[in-house]
Amino acid sequence: MDLELARDWLRTAVEEARAGHAEGGIPIGAALYGSRGEVLGRGRNRRVQDGDPATHAETAAFRDAGRRPSYRGTTMVTTLSPCWYCSGLVRQFGISRVVVGEAGTFSGGHEWLAAHGVEVVLLDDPECGALMREFVAGNPELWNEDIGFAGG
Amino acid sequence: MDLELARDWLRTAVEEARAGHAEGGIPIGAALYGSRGEVLGRGRNRRVQDGDPATHAETAAFRDAGRRPSYRGTTMVTTLSPCWYCSGLVRQFGISRVVVGEAGTFSGGHEWLAAHGVEVVLLDDPECGALMREFVAGNPELWNEDIGFAGG
Repeated sequence: MDLELARDWLRTAVEEARAGHAEGGIPIGAALYGSRGEVLGRGRNRRVQDGDPATHAETAAFRDAGRRPSYRGTTMVTTLSPCWYCSGLVRQFGISRVVVGEAGTFSGGHEWLAAHGVEVVLLDDPECGALMREFVAGNPELWNEDIGFAGG
Repeated sequence: MDLELARDWLRTAVEEARAGHAEGGIPIGAALYGSRGEVLGRGRNRRVQDGDPATHAETAAFRDAGRRPSYRGTTMVTTLSPCWYCSGLVRQFGISRVVVGEAGTFSGGHEWLAAHGVEVVLLDDPECGALMREFVAGNPELWNEDIGFAGG
């Protein structure tokens, strides 16, 4: 896809990430776009806000889009490389494309998705990277909890 | 693990599936067990009941268990082979074991999980199979929607 369009769509996900940051939550946002460039759903990680470990940014956007018979032609836009949980969501429901804000602070399943036919657009967005680096540095335990790396 | 224990734990997931069936929902249930055999969370598919496409049985049980620093030693018990979305959940959070009621009506990512170090116990439970066969035969469009196979 056109990179300028990808960067434009990423702004919606970044708005969600910023809102999560302002709430004291994990600053990851996502949006599901339809084939005509319309926003079908948007959301952010809600582990802290709702005490809900099952709501990552991508699953929040997917839920917000409601029940749909097909995801053909849709694009999941996320500020951070999707973890296995969210990558599995994309693969299972046949979401056609993923736009990733950055994969420097965490690299999930975006290469696995590309290997299974999903179009992956990996950006290197400075704001996405800065939001995550600041968050991880200040909240390492919370971040490890969110990706199941806390050990124990 | 001991198969009798696995079959016993499966009863909790089957209760959830039956409750979903009684509500007119998709009859798939799950439970997350702790390392001492305690139920940490349980739930069922809620696509129909809540209009929520993001709540599969496994993600419902995971949410019900609340925030946890680690899933080491836990077991996800589900009436049906977990789809990619739910398999990704298990892998990302390091859930140690999966007990699957049946994989005859649908085969998701349980072999992928086994290849990545998750202990998989595949049962061939007659009630799980009967619940799903009846549901799929009577509601093919709803079932395809739930696993993203509806095309279009």
